[in-house]
Formats: sequence, structure tokens, C-alpha cells
Amino acid sequence: MARALQYIATASLVVGSVRGAKYGVGGVFNGLARTPQMGWDNWNALGCSVSEDLLTQTAQLIVNYGLRDVGYEYVVLDDCWSNGRSSNGSLVPDYSKFPNGMAAVADNMHNLGLKFGMYSSAGSMTCGGYAGSLGYETIDAQTFASWGVDYLKYDNCYNEGESGTPLITYTRYKAMGDALNATGRPILYSLCNWGEDYPWKWAQTIGNSWRMSGDIYDSFDAADANCPCTGDEGYDCALPGFHCSMMNILNKYAPLVSKSQPGAWNDLDMLEVGNGGMSDTEYVTHFSLWAATKSPLIMGNDIRVMSPSALSILTNPAVIAISQDPSGSSITRRWRYYVPETDVFGQGEIQLWSGSLSYGDYVVVLLNAGNAARPMNATLEDIFWLNGPGGTASQIQQAWDIYDVWANRMPNATAAAIIAANGTSSVDLTPYYWNATQTSYAEGLAANSSLLMGNYTGTVQPRGTINTEVEAHGVKMFRLRPHASGSATKRDEL
Amino acid sequence: MARALQYIATASLVVGSVRGAKYGVGGVFNGLARTPQMGWDNWNALGCSVSEDLLTQTAQLIVNYGLRDVGYEYVVLDDCWSNGRSSNGSLVPDYSKFPNGMAAVADNMHNLGLKFGMYSSAGSMTCGGYAGSLGYETIDAQTFASWGVDYLKYDNCYNEGESGTPLITYTRYKAMGDALNATGRPILYSLCNWGEDYPWKWAQTIGNSWRMSGDIYDSFDAADANCPCTGDEGYDCALPGFHCSMMNILNKYAPLVSKSQPGAWNDLDMLEVGNGGMSDTEYVTHFSLWAATKSPLIMGNDIRVMSPSALSILTNPAVIAISQDPSGSSITRRWRYYVPETDVFGQGEIQLWSGSLSYGDYVVVLLNAGNAARPMNATLEDIFWLNGPGGTASQIQQAWDIYDVWANRMPNATAAAIIAANGTSSVDLTPYYWNATQTSYAEGLAANSSLLMGNYTGTVQPRGTINTEVEAHGVKMFRLRPHASGSATKRDEL
Amino acid sequence: MARALQYIATASLVVGSVRGAKYGVGGVFNGLARTPQMGWDNWNALGCSVSEDLLTQTAQLIVNYGLRDVGYEYVVLDDCWSNGRSSNGSLVPDYSKFPNGMAAVADNMHNLGLKFGMYSSAGSMTCGGYAGSLGYETIDAQTFASWGVDYLKYDNCYNEGESGTPLITYTRYKAMGDALNATGRPILYSLCNWGEDYPWKWAQTIGNSWRMSGDIYDSFDAADANCPCTGDEGYDCALPGFHCSMMNILNKYAPLVSKSQPGAWNDLDMLEVGNGGMSDTEYVTHFSLWAATKSPLIMGNDIRVMSPSALSILTNPAVIAISQDPSGSSITRRWRYYVPETDVFGQGEIQLWSGSLSYGDYVVVLLNAGNAARPMNATLEDIFWLNGPGGTASQIQQAWDIYDVWANRMPNATAAAIIAANGTSSVDLTPYYWNATQTSYAEGLAANSSLLMGNYTGTVQPRGTINTEVEAHGVKMFRLRPHASGSATKRDEL
Amino acid sequence: MARALQYIATASLVVGSVRGAKYGVGGVFNGLARTPQMGWDNWNALGCSVSEDLLTQTAQLIVNYGLRDVGYEYVVLDDCWSNGRSSNGSLVPDYSKFPNGMAAVADNMHNLGLKFGMYSSAGSMTCGGYAGSLGYETIDAQTFASWGVDYLKYDNCYNEGESGTPLITYTRYKAMGDALNATGRPILYSLCNWGEDYPWKWAQTIGNSWRMSGDIYDSFDAADANCPCTGDEGYDCALPGFHCSMMNILNKYAPLVSKSQPGAWNDLDMLEVGNGGMSDTEYVTHFSLWAATKSPLIMGNDIRVMSPSALSILTNPAVIAISQDPSGSSITRRWRYYVPETDVFGQGEIQLWSGSLSYGDYVVVLLNAGNAARPMNATLEDIFWLNGPGGTASQIQQAWDIYDVWANRMPNATAAAIIAANGTSSVDLTPYYWNATQTSYAEGLAANSSLLMGNYTGTVQPRGTINTEVEAHGVKMFRLRPHASGSATKRDEL
Repeated sequence: MARALQYIATASLVVGSVRGAKYGVGGVFNGLARTPQMGWDNWNALGCSVSEDLLTQTAQLIVNYGLRDVGYEYVVLDDCWSNGRSSNGSLVPDYSKFPNGMAAVADNMHNLGLKFGMYSSAGSMTCGGYAGSLGYETIDAQTFASWGVDYLKYDNCYNEGESGTPLITYTRYKAMGDALNATGRPILYSLCNWGEDYPWKWAQTIGNSWRMSGDIYDSFDAADANCPCTGDEGYDCALPGFHCSMMNILNKYAPLVSKSQPGAWNDLDMLEVGNGGMSDTEYVTHFSLWAATKSPLIMGNDIRVMSPSALSILTNPAVIAISQDPSGSSITRRWRYYVPETDVFGQGEIQLWSGSLSYGDYVVVLLNAGNAARPMNATLEDIFWLNGPGGTASQIQQAWDIYDVWANRMPNATAAAIIAANGTSSVDLTPYYWNATQTSYAEGLAANSSLLMGNYTGTVQPRGTINTEVEAHGVKMFRLRPHASGSATKRDEL
Repeated sequence: MARALQYIATASLVVGSVRGAKYGVGGVFNGLARTPQMGWDNWNALGCSVSEDLLTQTAQLIVNYGLRDVGYEYVVLDDCWSNGRSSNGSLVPDYSKFPNGMAAVADNMHNLGLKFGMYSSAGSMTCGGYAGSLGYETIDAQTFASWGVDYLKYDNCYNEGESGTPLITYTRYKAMGDALNATGRPILYSLCNWGEDYPWKWAQTIGNSWRMSGDIYDSFDAADANCPCTGDEGYDCALPGFHCSMMNILNKYAPLVSKSQPGAWNDLDMLEVGNGGMSDTEYVTHFSLWAATKSPLIMGNDIRVMSPSALSILTNPAVIAISQDPSGSSITRRWRYYVPETDVFGQGEIQLWSGSLSYGDYVVVLLNAGNAARPMNATLEDIFWLNGPGGTASQIQQAWDIYDVWANRMPNATAAAIIAANGTSSVDLTPYYWNATQTSYAEGLAANSSLLMGNYTGTVQPRGTINTEVEAHGVKMFRLRPHASGSATKRDEL
Repeated sequence: MARALQYIATASLVVGSVRGAKYGVGGVFNGLARTPQMGWDNWNALGCSVSEDLLTQTAQLIVNYGLRDVGYEYVVLDDCWSNGRSSNGSLVPDYSKFPNGMAAVADNMHNLGLKFGMYSSAGSMTCGGYAGSLGYETIDAQTFASWGVDYLKYDNCYNEGESGTPLITYTRYKAMGDALNATGRPILYSLCNWGEDYPWKWAQTIGNSWRMSGDIYDSFDAADANCPCTGDEGYDCALPGFHCSMMNILNKYAPLVSKSQPGAWNDLDMLEVGNGGMSDTEYVTHFSLWAATKSPLIMGNDIRVMSPSALSILTNPAVIAISQDPSGSSITRRWRYYVPETDVFGQGEIQLWSGSLSYGDYVVVLLNAGNAARPMNATLEDIFWLNGPGGTASQIQQAWDIYDVWANRMPNATAAAIIAANGTSSVDLTPYYWNATQTSYAEGLAANSSLLMGNYTGTVQPRGTINTEVEAHGVKMFRLRPHASGSATKRDEL
Repeated sequence: MARALQYIATASLVVGSVRGAKYGVGGVFNGLARTPQMGWDNWNALGCSVSEDLLTQTAQLIVNYGLRDVGYEYVVLDDCWSNGRSSNGSLVPDYSKFPNGMAAVADNMHNLGLKFGMYSSAGSMTCGGYAGSLGYETIDAQTFASWGVDYLKYDNCYNEGESGTPLITYTRYKAMGDALNATGRPILYSLCNWGEDYPWKWAQTIGNSWRMSGDIYDSFDAADANCPCTGDEGYDCALPGFHCSMMNILNKYAPLVSKSQPGAWNDLDMLEVGNGGMSDTEYVTHFSLWAATKSPLIMGNDIRVMSPSALSILTNPAVIAISQDPSGSSITRRWRYYVPETDVFGQGEIQLWSGSLSYGDYVVVLLNAGNAARPMNATLEDIFWLNGPGGTASQIQQAWDIYDVWANRMPNATAAAIIAANGTSSVDLTPYYWNATQTSYAEGLAANSSLLMGNYTGTVQPRGTINTEVEAHGVKMFRLRPHASGSATKRDEL
């Protein structure tokens, strides 16, 4: 059996039984990232332009804009920070960029209530040509721990041919995972080998997340030759590449949904929200899907030039609540059809995804990757296909209340005011933000917080169909909650 | 040469010559499962909801409903039964589920004339997150043997990267096979690595059966993203997945027919008959194909809520006689065509399969996986293609009597009465059941038992064609027996 | 560079320079099979039905029918001859089949001027379930040598997972090659691992030939599920299978032409000529292609029931002269087009192949695998494409005389008389046979023997086109010889 | 992250920071080939017909025709030069071809201001059957160094099964790289394993360039069976083959652009310019693409029969300046469309490629591989796609001057005169040649040399489109330079 999803459906049994067991669902590596990690990484927007100033400014803004409180906890410094090794073999920071060294940066982050992430590569060099950690796993892990690092993104460049079977690659990545754990410091371990040798088969016990594709590019669906493997079996790719569009990664991800679990996540790569290559609608789609697939949510934009629309997307509490749902279960794609409304890149398709949440709720995503708005619908039989095919799922025999998780999106004006206020108390965040540092998403969901539910938009009757309209390159994402008996409305459309 | 099937065609020679040889056809591992194993496993219907009560109740019903006597011998407890390891490293049952321990369960099964199967994984954990047997093969095999276990289903989760070549995977699975054999107790070894690294190439000498695909889903032919590899070379799949429909598995199986033999079977996964996701017609198709391909026949429904239609399918003696035929030769697909009558999932095709049986008989399966009933036909040249192409098979030069193996299917009313009687003697099973504990299928076939033959429905003349009508998503499955010379009828249609 | 073919074009230089070199073209293993081996193997027609009587009768007929003298030298006993191992570990023949043991059989062959081949598998068992040689390479090679064996066919069944990379498989097969060479007896080593792990990449230095596909089936182009990989990259097949039609194997072979050389041959599997599954025209096509691709020519029919048409195909001197040409260069496919005239199996295509021969000659094959006769033509530019693209080959600037290698085919009546005479001197073989035991094909070609040339049918002018008509499922195979200057005819059509 | 290209965009930062680092961009192996190597190799035109005379004559002509001064520095002797090993195991030259030994040849080259390359194979034999270096890496590297060799082309024939994973192949090739470096002599190391096991993943740290495909054939786009893998994922090829057309290699290369960097280059194989299989237009296309993709530029024609058109292509300074640009960044393919104007081989497509150069310039290639001239255009958004999708690249907001790098191509009459003069001073090369031995291309570019820029042909406005006409099988290749502010012309077409 390979059906991790089925364990979710019987989660109470599993959780109950696991207590006395040696291993438990999710407790497979180091206990971190029980929900997908959230944070920021400089790479997508800034590449090698890194410095202490950048991190300090960004971290302060993450606090000021309330991003820390909604959950973006890790500030991750990507490549190009080092300057060789010292005589004892330990990595040396580039003091021209980090004049106070890395421990000072970490302290700064910690003082702001944030956590600090760093970067290396499971190779002789990093992708940028700096010293890599292959063969230096122990000393480098100790160095990171000594600096107070809380997170390691571990890349795949210059790996000296150590790939070709899961066993070869697993062994290379396990060396760093073991070294990190051996430091005694809790360090979230983020594997970044672009899906080579199928990390979804083996990374759960040696890391907290693993990239499953080539690098994302800030495009909805454009293809270029740098990201090959666009066919139906795209996940099985001999050359992960880069310049992978949001839709390219999503389609490669579709067969992998069952491979993640609390503590061990498929990583669809960092967010592009706010970087400018997609429309607002497209960024809403991107963020919705990354949340519902339980990808890590690592902001990739330059926080110093945050736009109001990006801020209002990145902070949407009802969407983040789906990401941070304690069940840790990804949505699954139920169907995919090509449509004639293609865009300039020749792409056009529609998809239905759904999945289970905690507290008896479910999530439904209707994705219109076609180039024109269109009515879309989802039958309960399709939505609950995972719970039983052919009408066997008990869930289709009841009514469900439908909540639109984007209906309460913060107005741009409010977001603009937050940005303008820059951390002063002139803007009341209460109506739009969930402060997860005070009350976790799990607790909020358990308490039926309306902020986390989204807007009630109707009820679908047993064996009914959800009908809606979805704009071009957009999604509708709904939370379904069992309809209280006796109060079912008579309509099963929105 | 790779033609195990040809050995069947010259079986008398082989059997004769093997006697004094070190190895013989089928005697390749431990001597068990000379015909495909039959039994029950809780996973498909009940997942992790396991307990001593479940097994006890189920076992008693298996006896009461006559399922034991028709051949369902192994009661297999799947995942989620354990609670870590003891201080000496041995697996500990979850006493909240199995208050009397596993040896008591095994005794119970044995006392009922059944055999007891258990489950582990060739990984650090089972798929459900319980302790796995990788690195614990010897002690776990000894534990299972000490409990009186007769069967081990051995899964593939959390395998710590030990895959990527046949050699890596073979070595991992061989460790448990060797450990089981070393206990001295005959334990049927059922490999469940979902076809990764091509177990059909190497599992015959280290196990009794091997799964060749991702997990079955209770659907005739629906596709979802969880089961990739739907193309013509679907058997060569980098991600076996789950939610694989019956037709998906069948098509992946088609090139593998020559890889099984007595004692070593391709496993198309457990039966879904009775779980509700398919129609009665579709379950008949499913059961027919699993029998004729010599897949293990492991019931996957909840026996406590057995439906009459499921019972009448699962007990059909003429179909089981094909499964348990001593020759152990799978049907082979002769042709496959797509048809325009597609269903809601866009699928529609027809296929002809045929194969040899003992005692000079053959089996023919006409599968209509299209969405409308249609006439279908099979020429003797196609049916006997395996015995010689282009009209060279001697078999096409004779007449054959045609027996419909589903014509005598037990009426639902009778099945309902059996279920209602629950083991009392108020229902006479004789007209519908074959009691294999008294007379083996091989003996019954040798004695020309009409119960095992099916209904005579006509004779096809030399070089003739069998014409029939097959309902949508249905099969016609025929046993062909050489027509006694001199008495050929003049019709070659049904 | 990977262009072995180019070495042919500059052969005089290479041959000249190699003399003092440690290695030379073709001297890569044991010096045997400088031209593709010819012989007979019982498997295709008779499977496991082997005995001393069979071999004795067959060998005598091979002599009597003149097959030995035209080149069929090796009589190969396939699987199912053994009966376990003795107490010292050596293989024991099945004395019920071979009452005088194998050395006596070998002596018999040798006394008839033939050589004797045997069979084992690089696995724990042979495909038929008899003792295999994996781990027993040294003792088995010594046993074979002690019996006087001249040839070993070495199969791939039950290989205990030892596959997955070229290195793993190479190591397994090299063990037997080393063992055979260590015996001191010249033993032709025929690898039969069905193309797994790309033997064309590595087998040249450890063996004399290697199978490059699944097993042949006696069919021109019918497909069944047992032989997958029918697409454009069919040579890269995860499951070689069996029941591969002649055309299936040919198309898998097309990219491999440069991989063979004197002493090391791509093996397209044994001949089916005479087994009845193809028409006479199709067998002519089959034999032509196997000869011109330099596949070993191992007869696979039951010699005891040889048909006149089979005999006249198998003995055609002008065709065998192409197979046994000293240059050892395979034809290469220049083009392939699908045609609308498909047969009952849905197949239809046409192809042009060409290649170089010794003495300045070339061979051209126009293959019509469509279902209707059609005119076909080949330009000199296409024929000499290998010698230079785009009109750069010097060969297109001269005129060529065209010889039809099938024009002199022995009449069926003559063949019938030979069979009827059974070795008596009543039939004069001189007009139709080449006695290679007296004069080698190389010598005959050097002497311009008309028997080896075929019939002159015209001359093609510089930059001209050969036009001909090819029957359905047939070939035209021509030898081209430089037209003597001054005597060119004016026609460039046949 | 896998985006080496992004490092280019931030090169100043990287270069700045690397100074004190252990490793730096491009300093990944031995420091050689900071721009793609240029030279000549005898294989394409002459195969095994090698001798001291050939090299001496060719080297002198390379000097006389000014080819040395434009950059063709390495004279590489390919296969077929040796004659076994001496008693101490060292390679022995074939004295019949090289009567003065190899050190004399090297001295000759050095005296002419050239460098000398040789050839071996990472196998037991070379492709031509001569002694290979597998297992002899140390002694052979020492021999080469002792002879004064500056360059090693290292082939892949007869590799004794040592392939199948990157790790296996890497290890085999690293042995020679280590051995070369250990000699202390700077020897450029050119890997030639035809792309097997993905050298672009691992060769950067052990060599200076690596072939990424099967052997080139002197054809624009003709296919034959010897070069398989023609589909969209052609780079992932189980059988690299040979006879690969220029377009075939280009399309396999498209996903690999980010894998090269200064000191480590994707090698698209030697040039065919001047060998006669393509038209002049096609050779211009071939040379343009090899230059802009940063493939090594190794002439493959017989210099002794150099044609004027070939000479004028091979010496074009504005094209070579793109090849030798210090940034070392390949063009990337932005789009590819099939067109209906197919040629006799059924091929027809158009492509846009672009990339960054030093000094703020960019290069654009519009390729018309269709069979008829056609207007083509490129938007700035597409040209600068790599710098930001969806209009986010700052580069599209400015005007660009367009320089046609082929506009100043040397007239054939001049080239003919150069050839006729054969090194005498009767022809003034100044107007057409760049003498890189006096002033490097980098220096010339920094000084805005018009010879290296090409002809100004217009200016494209911000967000504008370049419109041009491209002949069949031709390219337009433009250098874009930021338009000086204030002087923008009003036209954005050519």
C-alpha cells in the first residue's frame, strides 16, 4: 500500500495508536515543520545581492508588516555569503557583506522573534561557485549551529557525480541531515536537489522538505527550453532545469501529493508573489495552490518594495489556515482538461483539486488556467473521490456549507496603509490578520474563527454540484464544512 | 530465450525431465503457492481499523460462508497492528487492538482451518508510520514464526533510498525472504514494492508473489493524477502511485504475463469485489481477469457486510478453477483496440486474451471495456496465437467445445440465504460451491466436474470464430475443451 | 567519435596500422566469429524437446543437404539438457535424453565436420528451470571445454537481480567470458541478455555476439503485448519480452548498426525461415535482412522436415556472401516512411538500407513492409549517404552495375530433389551452392564468382536513381559494383 | 537554485566576492579555456588518415591563412596515431605515420605559435581499435605531458561497461583529469562521452568541456537511424549515436545552456564548415550557433583544400567576438515553432535565441530552419525574457542599437586571394581579421572596435520589436548595445 492519504482519513486511529510506537506519522525526522515552513528567502528577487543590511532591513519589515505574526518565521540567506574556508576548514563569511559575521545576523533575527536560515550545497561548490559542503558536512553543520542557524537550504550544484540512483543521492543528503541533528540544535533541513532521483521516495526520514522540480520562474505558464519535461510524466525528469512556470511545477507535482506529511513536505519552490511577472489574479492562484498543496510558503519578493496587492495575498488568513492545517494533507487533483482558450504561450487547461482538512472540513480548488473566464463546477462525487469512488464516499450523502477563502481579502488601500505606516500602530490589523504567535491556526480553526473560514457563500446539497465562475488564470478556493442538520438551504449553487 | 510460456506448451517434457534436476519449474523459492494464494486482507475496506475482534469475526464468517472451503485460506492482517519494539528489539503488538497478542490470533485462525498472514515493510517504517523491518529482518521473521504466522505481506515505504537498480531492491527484499526461510516455518512471502525496479525480473527466486503496479482503487477505469503512467509503456513507471483503476493495472500487466509461474506470481493487487465502487458487471470482469491472470485472489471487502452479489462472484467455482489450474499459466493479451464508445472518464477499448489450462483446455476472455454492449468475436487463429502464429498452431485445426464459466453463477437469492443463514446448515451449498478442502480443483478438473467447467454453449469448428455479445464493461470468459471427434456440431457460433 | 563505420571507409589505413598494435579492429575478444557465425539451434522449432537423436539426425541432414558446406557450422543444443549438478558441482547431462553424455555428442558433431554449441544462463537457473551458471562460471566453462564444446549461448533468466546498469550486467557476463577463455579451448561466446543494459555498449570485448532484443516470433510484423517498446526509441526497452516480430526487431536494430564489427556482432535472434508463420516472400525478406545486418545466421527450423522453399532460401550463395563479407559492416537504414497500405495488424512502411562490402562493392536493400506491391526507388545520394551527405560522397559520381542477389535462387524442384536425395550424389549442387569449406566467401568474392554476385540487371548512371518494383512484405536486395569505365549502359533504371 | 545564468546578471558582485574565496566562478578545474577553445581536429574531414605531414602542412596553413591569429590555437590529432604499448606500458606512436615521434610534432606546433592536442579513449581501446587509456591514466598522462601535449580529447569507446550512473562515468573520467593535472603541465581536458550519464551535471569540476550529443554529421537537418532521440526530450538519450545533424544537436542542446561557464563548456562537436554537406547559408547558421552557444570552435575541414567561403566564415571577427566574449554565457532559446515550409527531410521550424554579453551588450539569433525565406521578429520582452518575464526586465524599457554581425563578412574574392597568397604579405588582412594574439577579443570589445561589433543597422525603441527577414536555413545574428540617450532614432524596425 502506498496510500498515505488513507491514513489521514483514519487519522484518529493512527494518532491514537502511535503514542506508544517508536515512530509516528510525521515524527519521521527531527520533529520540526509539523506544518509547512513559512518565511522569506532572498534568491528569487535578489540573487547574489546579499548583505547584513538586506537581512536586517527585511527582517524589520517582516515584523513591521505583520508578516511574522501571520507565520513567516524563517529569514533565509541564500547563496553568495561566504569567502572560502579558514585554516581549520570552517566556512568563513564574506565580511564585506556581513561585517559582523553570521552569528550577529542570527542574533538580530532571534531578537526580532524570527528564525535564521542559511544555505549550502551538497557539492564541492555552491551554485554560485562558493565553497560547498560535500565532505564538510560535520564541520559545516557545527558552524551553522554555532552561529545560531535554525534552517538550512541545501542545494545540488557541483555534486561530483554523486547521483544516478536514489541510494547515491540519499546517502549524500543524509550526511548533512545526520550532521545537523548531531549538533543538538533544532535545524530545519530543506533539501534542494530539484527532484533528482525522486526525493519523494526517500527524503521523509532525513529532511523536512524537498524540492520536487526545477527552479520556479515568475510566470504563470510560459515555457522556455530551460525547463524541459512538459509532458504527462513531467515529474520523471532527467534535467530539472530552471525557468519552470507556476503551472509547469503544479503539473509535475500532481502525482506526488501523497508523499508529504507533517514534518516532511514536497517543496514546489519559493513564492514569486510580488515579483511582477504575473498578474494579481495569477498570484492569487499561485498562492492558493502553494498553500493547499502544503508547499513551504517562502516569500520570494523584495520586502523593501512590497506592493499592497502582494501584501494582501501573502497575509490572507483563510488561505494560510489551509496551509497550516494540522492534518498536513495536500489537495489531490481529481481531473484535468485542456480547453480551447489558450494564451499567447499556447497553454489552456482547467483542473479540479480537493483535499481533507482538520475538523471535518475539506478544501476544493477550481483552477481555470484557460485564457478566458468560464463557468466551472465540481460534483461532490468528484470532490470526495479520494474518500471513495463511484459514489461510495459517505461525504457525498450530506450537505456542505461553502466558504470562499478569498472573499475577505484585505483591500489594497488597507495594505497600502500598512506599508505606509511601516510598523506604527496607525493601522488596525485585527480585521484582516491572524496573529499566529498568539493563537495558532489550529486553535483558531478549532474555535471556528470566521477569519480563518472565509465567507459563507451557500450550501451544496447531498450528491449536489458546486457551480461557480472562475476568471482567466484564476482559482476559486472553497472550504467545505458539514452543513448543520436541519438548516440546509435549498440551493446547491453559489 | 525468455519464453516461459513455451515451457507450458511442452510441459510434459519439462515435468518429466525436472524430477532429477536440482531445480524445477515452480520449485524456485520455498515450494508454497503452487497455485495463486487465496485469502482476505483488511486494507482495501478497513485500512488501519484493525483489531482482534475484526479478525475473529471475519475469520468465522469466512468459514461460515463457505469461503474457506472454496479456497480463501489466508487471513491477512495489514498495517497498523504494532506498538514499537521491545527492549530486545522485537516487534510488540498494540495490545489495545490485540489484547491477547498475535499468537492467540494465529491460533484462532488455525483452529478455524485458516492460515494467518501479517504485514511489515522493507523500510524503517511501515506506510502507516509503525516500526518497519529494514535492518530487523532476522528478528522480525523469527517473531512472526514464533507467533505462528503463515504469510507475510512486505511493503516498500520508508525504504531509506534503497532502490534504483534491480540489484539494490532485490538485495533488500531477499534479506527478508532468507530470514523467513531460515525460521523453518513455511511462510508465504508476498512482496509489495509496487513494481519498482522490475520485480518480475528477479523476485521468482526470493518470494512467492510481487505486486507489479501501484495500489488498486475501487474503480473500473477512472484515472486520477495519483496513478501516473497511463501510456503504452505504463509498466515502466517511475512513480507507481495509488488510485490505479482495474483497467489501469490490467494494461500495465499485459507485457508481464510470462513472468509468473507456480510458486511465483505477478500480484495485480487485492480484490475490490464488494466494496461498492464498481457495478456487478464490472466486478465480474475484475474477478475474471484476476483469476485468469493468476493474480493472488485476496478478498478486499468487509466480510461482515458481504453482499449477495459479491459472495456469488467470489465463490464461482468455474472461475476459481481457472485461477487454481495446476498449469499456473496466465492468459496473454492477443489484441487491444480502442473503441468510440467511451465513458465519462474518456476510456473505451476492447481486448482479447487467451491462455492454456491443464488437461488440454484453454481459456478465452473477450473484454468489452467500452461503454456500450457490442458483438465481439475471436478467431481460433488469434486464440491460439501463442501456440503458433500465422495458422501454424495445430490447435486451430480441431473443433472446440465452448463452456461459459459464468453461466452457472449462483443466484443472488441463494447468496442472500447463505449470508442470512450464517453458517447454519439451512442452505445447501452443493449446487454452487466447490469444496476444495475435500477435492482439489486439480482433481475436480481431472474428473471433468461440471461445476468447474461452466456451461456448454456450443462448439467452434476448425479454423472457426467464436462470436458472442459482451455487455458494457463486461467480459465473456470461456473454457475451451477439445471437441470429441465424431460429434462435432455444425455451428461455430454461440 | 563513435563512428565505427567510418573506419570501414578507411579500412586500408586501419588494417595497415593495426599490425603492430596491441589491439586491432575485430581482434577485440577471442579471435572467433570474424564473420557472423552460422549454424542451427533447436529452440525456435523444438523448445525443450531435445535429445541425442535429435542432434544426430539434424547434424547428418545438415551435412547431407549441403548446409554445412555453405557455412552452417555450429549445431547448438539449447535449454533443457541437464539434470542438476554432481557432488563436485559440475553439471550433469540428462542421460535419459543424452544416454552417451555430451562429449559423445560433440565427437559426433566433430566427426561430421561440424562444431558443437551448448547453452546455459547467467542466472541461478536456466529459463527452463535447470541449473544455471551464475557463480559456477569456472567449473561450467571447464566442463564445456572438457566435453569439446565450441560455442556457448548464455541466457539471462533468474539473474538474481544482477542488472540495472551496464556495469552490473557486464560484470556478470564477463565472468563467463573470462572462464571460457581460461579453458584454452576456442569457444564462441554468444550473449543472450535480450539487450538489457545496452550490451552494444560493452559486449564487444567480452563476447562474440549479443542479442539486442526480446525473442523473435515467427511473424512478419504482428504485435502482441508480450513484446512491448514498439515506438521510435524501441531499442531502449525496460522489458525486452518475446513474441517480437521480424519487423519489430529490425526497427529496434536500426540505431545499432555501428556497434558490431568482425568478432563482435549484434544478434537479431535465430532465424524463423521454414517454421511456417511467414510466407515465402516474408522469409526471403527476413533472411536478406539478417544477412545484410550481419546478424548471426542460426537456422531455427526443424531440419528433419525441411521444406524446399526454406532450403532454397537458406542456401542462397549471393545472400550468404553478403553476410560473410570480410568487411563485416552492417547495412544502415537511410530512410523509413509509413505507407497507407497496412495489413491486418495495422502495419505498413517502406525502408531503404545500404552499406559497404569488400572489394569496392555496396549493398542496397529496398524493403516494402506495406501490404501491396509498389514501385520503389533509391537515389545514389541516399545509397551513399554514409559516405558523405549532401552529394559529397565521391561514390555518387560514378556509374554502378546492379546485381540482384535473389535472381539466381534455386528452383523449388531442385531443392525438393536435394531433400529427396538426402545426401546421395544424385543432385548436382554446383549450379546453386557455394562450398565454403573449399573456397571461402572472401576468396570467391575476390575472384568475382558469379554465384556470389547475383544477376546483373542494369547499370545506374552517376547521380542516378535505382528504380524497381517490390512486392508486399518483400525486398529487393542488390549488390552494386563499380561500372567498368567505357562500358556504361545508358539506362539508369532496372 | 540551478540558475548559473543569474550569476551572470550579477557578475560584478560575484567577481568581487570571489577574490578571496577558495573557488570562483570558472576556476572550477584547471584554469584553462576561460573562453571556449578554438582549434582544428582532423577527424571530421580525414578520419584515420593521419601523419606528421598532415599536421605539419595543416599547422603551417593555419598560420599562413591567419587562422592562428584569429584564435584557432589548438591543432588536435585524433585517433589512429599509436602502435601499442612499450614494454614499460607507455603508448608508442606509429612511426610509419610519425617518423619523428610525437614530441617532434609538438615542438613543431609550438614553434609555429600553436598548441598541440592528442586523443585517447576512456576505454580498453580507442574507437579505432588502438590501445586505450582505461587503467593507464597515470602513465598516459605522463607520456602526453612529456611529449609537450597541451590538449587531450578523451573518447568513450570500449569502456568495459563502466557507465550507467553519473557516479560511474564521473569516476572513470576523473581518473584522467586528475592524472593530467598531476603532470604539472597545463593540458586542456576535452571529455567526449557523447552526453552519456549527463556530463553537464558533473563534468565542470573535472574537465574543460564535454560533448553533449552523438557525433555531428555534415548535414543541416537530415535524420537517419544512426542518431536516435529526435523528440522533445532528445537530450536524454540512451544511445547517442552519430550522424547527428546540426539542427539535431542544437535541439538537444537547448535545455543545457546554463550548464557551461568559463573553463567548462558544453561541446556541440567539431565544426563541419567547409566539408561540403551544407550550403554556405547553412554553414553561416552552423558557425553562428556554435559561437553563440559557446561551444568549442574546432575546425573540422581539411585546411589544405580550404574554400574561400569557408575561410570567410571561420574568420568573421564579430562572430568570434561573441564566442570569445569574457562573460562566457550561452544564448538561451526563447521560443521554437514548427512551420509548414518543410524540406525534403520533412523538417521545418523557427527559433529565437538570445543571451547576454559583456559590456552591457546582448546577442539575438533569429533562426529560420524552414525551407523558405520568411519575415521574422523578436520582441524585447522575448529577447530579455531571461532577465525577467512578463515585462519585468528593466532592459525592455530602453532603446537598443542593433548591429548585424554578418554584415561585414569578408568577400569571397578576398578570401580566395588570401588562400592564393598562402602566407605571403600580398593580402592585407586588417580590414577583415581580428588579430587576437595582439589584442584579445575582450580588449577589443572594451575598446568598441567596430570590427567586433558588426554593422549598425538600426535602433529598436523601448518595448519595441526587431523585424527582419531571414533566408531559408539561415540566421540573423545581432549584437544589441544600449542606445546612447538623446540620440535614439525613431524607427524600431530594421
